[in-house]
This record gives sequence, structure tokens and C-alpha cells, in this order.
Amino acid sequence: MTFRAPVRDLLFALKTVGHDALIARAFPELDEETVAAVLEAAGAFTTEVLAPLNRRGDLEGARYENGRVTAAPGFADAYRAFAQAGWNSLSADPEHGGQGLTKALELAVFEMVHAANMAFGLCPTLTQGAIEALTLQGTERQKRLVLPKLVSGEWTGTMNLTEPQAGSDLAGLTTRAEPDGEGGYRLYGQKIYITWGDHDATDNICHLVLARTPDAPPGVKGISLFLATKRLVNDDGSLGELNELRPGGIEHKLGIHASPTCVMLFEGAKAELVGELGKGLAHMFIMMNAARLQVGVEGVGIAERAFQQALAFSQERRQGRSVWSQDYPAAIFDHPDVRRTLLLMKAKIEAARGICLTTGVLSDLARLAEDETERAAAQARQELLTPIAKAWSTDVGVEVASMGVQVHGGMGFIEETGAAQHYRDARIAPIYEGTNGIQAMDLVGRKLPMAQGAVMRELCAEILLTAEQLTGQAELAGVGRRLAAGAAALQEAGDWILAHPGADTLAAATPYLRLAGDVIGGWMLARQALAAAGSDEAWARSKLALARVYADHVLALAPGVAEGLRSGADDLAAVAAEALSA
Amino acid sequence: MTFRAPVRDLLFALKTVGHDALIARAFPELDEETVAAVLEAAGAFTTEVLAPLNRRGDLEGARYENGRVTAAPGFADAYRAFAQAGWNSLSADPEHGGQGLTKALELAVFEMVHAANMAFGLCPTLTQGAIEALTLQGTERQKRLVLPKLVSGEWTGTMNLTEPQAGSDLAGLTTRAEPDGEGGYRLYGQKIYITWGDHDATDNICHLVLARTPDAPPGVKGISLFLATKRLVNDDGSLGELNELRPGGIEHKLGIHASPTCVMLFEGAKAELVGELGKGLAHMFIMMNAARLQVGVEGVGIAERAFQQALAFSQERRQGRSVWSQDYPAAIFDHPDVRRTLLLMKAKIEAARGICLTTGVLSDLARLAEDETERAAAQARQELLTPIAKAWSTDVGVEVASMGVQVHGGMGFIEETGAAQHYRDARIAPIYEGTNGIQAMDLVGRKLPMAQGAVMRELCAEILLTAEQLTGQAELAGVGRRLAAGAAALQEAGDWILAHPGADTLAAATPYLRLAGDVIGGWMLARQALAAAGSDEAWARSKLALARVYADHVLALAPGVAEGLRSGADDLAAVAAEALSA
Repeated sequence: MTFRAPVRDLLFALKTVGHDALIARAFPELDEETVAAVLEAAGAFTTEVLAPLNRRGDLEGARYENGRVTAAPGFADAYRAFAQAGWNSLSADPEHGGQGLTKALELAVFEMVHAANMAFGLCPTLTQGAIEALTLQGTERQKRLVLPKLVSGEWTGTMNLTEPQAGSDLAGLTTRAEPDGEGGYRLYGQKIYITWGDHDATDNICHLVLARTPDAPPGVKGISLFLATKRLVNDDGSLGELNELRPGGIEHKLGIHASPTCVMLFEGAKAELVGELGKGLAHMFIMMNAARLQVGVEGVGIAERAFQQALAFSQERRQGRSVWSQDYPAAIFDHPDVRRTLLLMKAKIEAARGICLTTGVLSDLARLAEDETERAAAQARQELLTPIAKAWSTDVGVEVASMGVQVHGGMGFIEETGAAQHYRDARIAPIYEGTNGIQAMDLVGRKLPMAQGAVMRELCAEILLTAEQLTGQAELAGVGRRLAAGAAALQEAGDWILAHPGADTLAAATPYLRLAGDVIGGWMLARQALAAAGSDEAWARSKLALARVYADHVLALAPGVAEGLRSGADDLAAVAAEALSA
Repeated sequence: MTFRAPVRDLLFALKTVGHDALIARAFPELDEETVAAVLEAAGAFTTEVLAPLNRRGDLEGARYENGRVTAAPGFADAYRAFAQAGWNSLSADPEHGGQGLTKALELAVFEMVHAANMAFGLCPTLTQGAIEALTLQGTERQKRLVLPKLVSGEWTGTMNLTEPQAGSDLAGLTTRAEPDGEGGYRLYGQKIYITWGDHDATDNICHLVLARTPDAPPGVKGISLFLATKRLVNDDGSLGELNELRPGGIEHKLGIHASPTCVMLFEGAKAELVGELGKGLAHMFIMMNAARLQVGVEGVGIAERAFQQALAFSQERRQGRSVWSQDYPAAIFDHPDVRRTLLLMKAKIEAARGICLTTGVLSDLARLAEDETERAAAQARQELLTPIAKAWSTDVGVEVASMGVQVHGGMGFIEETGAAQHYRDARIAPIYEGTNGIQAMDLVGRKLPMAQGAVMRELCAEILLTAEQLTGQAELAGVGRRLAAGAAALQEAGDWILAHPGADTLAAATPYLRLAGDVIGGWMLARQALAAAGSDEAWARSKLALARVYADHVLALAPGVAEGLRSGADDLAAVAAEALSA
């Protein structure tokens, strides 16, 4: 089926998370109508250009031949159209050719890109990371010759971190950067899992590469960030010869077949330092944090696509008698079990969408709020929410894609239907840009402890305020009770974690992240319901139903999750691997 | 990696669910050593013959050419070796050539078959259903000429139910059975999703087919069951010419590529009635119920396989410093988040295994207990547990396979690793033999209401007794508390459902089934922990750890699930499909 751009839902979600207030304060050239127009235009592009390529990209994929990668059929043309239409540079600084829109709006646009064609969306997503890194850390030459090409989309960017022995822990990476005696470097080593590491959609590709200089200290302090381009760039901006780097092959993957995942071989590639020597990991995290939020949005996008397909199928497919309408055969949408499934899918999507867009608004405020205290507060909350936005939303992506397969019954397992592709594509998002386990450790180890837990405490207090507002309204009182219980459970779980550092904290990390996402997601739905209350329109009424369904089937579990995670790590510590294989 | 037969765990699980008592009473020729020997031998066959074919079966799959299906490379030989070794007929009646072992033991063997090679396991699973149907409903001729061939495995069986317009609701099927004037019938119609509908592993295939006779009443009462063989069978048992039926093609599926899923075309195929006219659906349910339990076991098997692979990977892969050992780089098994994941995977497997084997023991008791009251009680509980065994275990299969991918990090998404195949293969099990939604409706609509809820009430009372036993032991007291709370929640949720028939019940069906599986699964782990308590051996101690991890991360949520499902169907009823697409 065709992808339908969820423009109305996105506009509503943006409004609910304070995007209107943001643009009124910090983006004087933007107004509600412009935002709507951007989303409408992006919706048209994604539905008309990107979505129709999605299945063919899955079937035929990118190809590796004669040492070079060819993008899947139609993808190179689509990419050039995408860049030409300006979609690549929505939030980039106008000084470098960008359009200066909000990060939050850019995320909303990219949600549709990922929904229409996740494998395609990865290419500009990686470029965005490179833009961020060069904007903040690039040399004058890099900003003059490279950055504008990335902003315009004429060239694309990649992140080269992982090596076979160094994945979640980058301290062990061994790619070498040797000074060439002229102020530059030569890179030697092998990187793996490089998304869009090579392709034929643009004339050049900018690889941001983590490597070690000779005599650098061991561990993370010896890692620096380098820029190596596929073709060398002359001082006048023209392209020189091919650099000494090449793709060694592409992976045969479960999904996102049209996204070439390359082994990259650096065989003396000319490279320039980006930022400071020894600060490579810190600089790379600039890219990683933006990329993590983008990956969360991928989870939302693929879930939205899976939901749309399941909803459409449920209206077409007729089986059995409906207990409501007594129709026979009834559309399966009219069976309570199927409708509960669909509403829960949709509720989780809106919850994850709200979390990601909130994080986007916070990142705008962290840059642009006038008041420094406000900037710092936004920055702190953005940091707190980023691992949740990444991990919880991508878990939702997998879960909703799986529910989408299930709604289709037997047809869900047949590849032609398309539901199975979403289930396959969605599965990568909890893995890359830091596995969801890594996100959970980041949350409990670095983010929750910020200001002795005050950042999370303030968030919980805000959620409780919303819960109070809800309890005042008869039709949302139940949601309010569950949200209040959830916020209290989240607060208590956080307090327990702060009081139990070390192994106990690490053992609780993933359940705590789940709890945080469940509760903060419920907050998002509660605010949507409050904003929609009072209207008689079916669409607005559905927002209240979504909040209630979510409260009953997700928030109701929060106290149990919070209780269970306080079990500590002793049981885990005592079990040897051998005892588990009998 | 190689599949390792979990013989010790299976023996322990069988013992814990009363298999020893069963054989002592009803299977005088069986003893503990024979049971162990059967599992050891099956373990050897599955690891040596079936497991090595699994990946190639996935890559190359079954082929459809020139109107016939060729099994995936190696599968036909493996099937013949399987049948020759007697694995096809473990529980079949010795009168028809079977070995007369317990159903429960057969399930334990088949769990290993599915773990080693799920696509392979489907073939004998379907044959088992045909054996059951012909044993109970076959004519004298069918029992003489066909049944022994199915028992020996010389021929295989299929179930032909689904048609494009008739899936979950079979009332709408249109395949016609026209009397041929000689006491037989001719079948005309198209069936879809026919597992192992055609292949080259045996000389003949026995299709059990649902069809309508002329003048039959509309709806389910007009449906009868027929037997049509690929080759006609002469009265002396020799094979005659090809029947007028053929595969129209095989599906391109997400997983189980080596299991040919056929469109079957019946073009005047000669067929015989099985059982009574108009009772086709009832007769088919004989096969369906056994098949549902088998599909539950598929879920357990694929989860076990995924777990083994993830566990092995976690011991090999080294990243980061362990908070426990301070090793660097440490095996990722020594990181609390990874170990929690693995223990939860294993706990869910043991829970599902226990539920399926319990259901198997009950089906043996329902046939063979001396006392009629006991037989009836076993039958009723078996009927109650069957939808839970099917749906909950297959959901566990998908969940654990997904967790297995996650443990692998980036490598989990690469097809060569093999983790992705389990994730793809596992996804069919919640769909076929009645979707898990259909199972949930069966549970709340037919099974829970048996004897006004007494069957479930008695089960909950037994669970509470176990919980009391646990609370007496210091190291299991916490598990006891959570199990007691879970059993109480299950009981209350059931009472609520019985008091709220119609749409409210249907809306609560899936959460209720989840709750039942969560709690009954916890009961299984609790009994394993009780049986293992007192031993100092690492393997026995791990059973206590599994029960505790499950209690903390699954049972702790039961009260919330029970609360949430009492929300009724009004919110669902009020939402129109159009309101969800904005």
C-alpha cells in the first residue's frame, strides 16, 4: 500500500510539545503556516518519490561490484532530487547554505522520510551528523570547502567508528593516523558497519574516521577524529584524484537492503584532523547524539508505516461476525482484539513521537533560548531524554512492526505483502548508534546522576502536575491516576538506582529505561488528550481513547516494572555460563 | 554454531511436570532411563543430521518447478533417515506401527527437532495431525491402507483448511466435494498456506481437506473432512496414478524457507470422506488441537536455539570492563545487562517448556488415567492450557529470538551469523494454527467459561499452594509472594471476564492470555526451583536464579496487567478507522 504522510498528527504532536512557543521566541521567520507547508511538501515528496522505491530497494538492494557500490535502483536519482529540493539542510545554519529551521521540524520531516523508505533515510541522516561535527569542530578549510557541499547534499557523510574488535567499546580501536609531514595524515585500518560507506549517488563522500596517532596514549584518550574524502578536494574546491580508501564489500543483512553497509579499507588515505588531537571520541559524540535522536525517529517512522499498513489491511480484510456491528463477514477492524492491537500500536507511536520531538525542541532551546539558565536546563533535559528517545522508540519500532505482521495473519508472513519488510528493517534500530543496552547504561550511569538526580526529579514533578490536571476531568481521571502512579514509580526507581551504584545499577538499566519511556510516553499522550479534550471531532476524540488504552495497557504496568528492577545484581552475579547449558 | 541438545533441562522439566508419575502409572514399559535414552538419541539425531541443514535450507529453500516441489538440499534424505529411525511415530498406537510412548516425551523430542531445524520439523508435525485424525475418525480402509504409512513416515500428511477468503473464519470456505456416484468424492477448489503441501521426500502425500458437499447447509455445519492422496492408493496398498491435485506454487516467505508453503489446486481430485458428513470442522479440530500444542513447542524450540547462540556469543565476544571481574576486555556475558537478558531468555524458555510439557502430560492422562473423573479433569485442564501453550510460547519464541539478535549487537543483523534466521523463522508461529488472537478468544470464550470458571479456579488454587510452599523457604520467599500475587490477579481477572461477556471479554482476551501464561509460566519455574533447592550444584542453583529473575521482571507485572485488562471495550468501540489516519 501507499504511504500516507501523517501531517495532521505531526503538526499536533509538534504543537503539544511546545514547538509553537519555540518558533514564536526563537524563529521569527517561522509561523504555524510555514511549518504546515514544510510538512505538506515533505509529505508529498516522501509519498511520491521515496515510498515507491522502498520495496524494490528491499528486493534488489545495493550492489558491490568491482570494488565500488551501486545504490539500489532509483535511489541515486531520488537522492539527488531530495538534495535539490533542499530536504537535506532544513536545520543547518544559513551561513553554510542551510535553511535554519528548527531541529524539531527537521525530525518531523525525517520521520516521514524513514517511514517512506528507511534505507534511503539513513544516507542524509549520516550526512547530518557530519554537518554537526564540522560546524562545531571543523577547520576553516573544512568549513569553506566541505561543509557547504554536505549542507547542499552534493556530497554525503559517513561515520567510521566500529572495527571488528571495537564496537560498543571503542577504546580498543586500532586504525592508525600517521602524520604525512605536511600537516596532514595518512589513515591505515579497517572499519566495519559503515552505513552508505560507498555509493554512486554523489561525486564525493566525506568520511569522518576515528583513529590513533603514533605515540597516542592507549584507550579513549588516544583517539582523534579525521576527515578523509573519497576524492581529494583541491584548494579551489574542485575534485582531485581518488583517495586511498575503498569499500571492501557490503554486508548481507536482515533488512534495510538498500542501505549499503560497507567494510571500509583505509590504505594510506589522506586525511585531515578534525578538532583537537585526542578528543576524537568527544567530537564524535556530537554526531552520535544527534544520530541517536534520529535513530529514535527511525523507530517512530517504521512503526508509523507498519501501523498504516495494518490499519488499511484491517479495513479491507473481512472475517467472522463483529460483536459490535453484527456484520458478517465484518472488517477485522471491527473485532475488539484487532482494534485493541491497532490502538495500542498507534498509542505507542504517538508516545515515541512525542518523546523524540520533545528532545528535538529541547535541542533547539539549548542552542537558542535567550536565558542561559534556560539553555542549560534544556541541554540537561535533552541529554537525559536522548537515550530514552533512541532506545524506547526503536523498541517500539520493532514491537509495532511485529504487531503489524500479526494483524495481517498469514499474509503478514508473505514477503509480497510488505509487512515483513518493516519487521526486518525495524530490527536494526535498537542495535546501531549504541545498542539499546548501551543507551540504558548511559541513562543510569551518566544522565540520571546529573545534578544528583535533579534533572529527572524535575521531569517527574512536571509529569505529576499534568496528572493532576487530568484528574480534574472526568473522562481523563483514570489516565491521571495511572500517570501519577507511573511518575511516582519512576521517581522511586531513580532514587533506588542512585543509592545503588555499580552492578545493581547496571542490572536495572534496561528495565529503568523501559519504565522511563513508558511513563514519559504516557505523559506525551496525556498532554495530547488534554489538548484534544473538548472537541467533538472524531480525530480529536481518538486522542483521548489512545491515552486511555495506553494507560490501561502500558502505564498500569509501571509500578510492577519499578518494583522488579530493584532486585539487584546478586542473582545475576551468581550464575555461571556453564550452568545455563545443560 | 552447533545446536546442543538440552537433554538435562528437558529431563528435569519432564520430571517437574509429573512425567515420572505418569509413566509409573500408565506406561509400564517406560522408565526414567528409557526416557533419558530416547532424549539422548533424539538429541544426537537432531544435532548431527537436522541442525547442519538449517542454514542451507534457509538460503536455498524449497523449489517449485514444472508443477512440483523439490525439498531444500539434503532435506529429503534427512526426512527418510528421520522416519527410518522411528522418530515419526513415538506416541502413535503400536497397533498401527507406533511406539506407544507418551505425548509429553514426543513433545520433548520435537522441541529439539524444531530447535535444530524448524522448517524440517513442520513436515512430521503435520503428519502427526493426520495420524490423530485417521486414528479417531478414519474408515477401516483408511486405517488399513493409509494410517500405517503415515505412522511409519513412508508418507506424509497435510492439513488443507485455509482459502483466500476463509482463514480465521473457516465458515466461508468454498472448496466443493462432489459425490462420484461410487461412494467417493471429487474435490474442486483452491487451498492456500498448505505446509509441506508438496515435496519429493516421500512417494505419497495424504491431504486432509475441508470441503462442502452439494446441498450442504451454509456455514460450518456444511463442512466435511476428506482424504485425498497425491497418488491414488489401490486396494492392495500399492500406488496408483497421480490424483487430480497439484501445487500451484510456493510462497516467498519471511522465514522457514525450507518448508514449502503451497497453494494447492484440487481439480477433481478423488477423495474419501473422513468421519461424518458435516462434522469436518470438529474432526479437523482433533488435528488442530494437537497441532496447536506442537506449534507452542516450536516457539520453545526456536527460543532455545536463539538462546544457545546468544549465550555462546556472549562468552566469546569481549568488550569493555566487567563491573564484577574487572577483566578487560571482558566477555560480554560478564556485563550485568547482557546477563540479565540471557537469564530472562532462559527463564521464559523454561516457563514455556513447562507449560507445553504439562499440557502434553495432561493429554496422556486424558487418554490413559484409570479413573474417569481424573481423565475428565485432565481433559478439561488440557483444553484450558492448549491456547496458552500455543500463543504464549510462540510469543516467547519471537521475543527471545529478538533478544538473541540484540545480544549479538551489529552481528545480529548480519545474516551469516544465523541469529536473524531465528528471528525470521520464529515469526510464523504466532500466526498459523489459529493466530494468537484466535487462541486468546478461544481461551476467554470457550475455555475459561468451562464449568463456570472452575477449571481455571482450581488451577489458580494449585498455584497458590505452590506459592505457600515457596514462602516457607528463605531464598524463594520473594518468588512465593510474587507468584501468590500473580495467581490472585489471574483469578480476579478471570472472574471479571466471566462477569463481562461480549465485547468486554473480547477486548480483554489477549492481555488475559498473556497474564495466564506469565503466571502459569512462573508456576513452572517455581516448581523447578523447589525441585532444585537444596542442591549446591551450579546447574541446580541456576534454577533458583531463573525463578527469581522471572518473578522480578515478569510476575511483578501481573497485577498491573490484570488491572489494565478490566478496562472494557467502550474506548475501542468509539474509535473509527478514519480517525486514526490523519
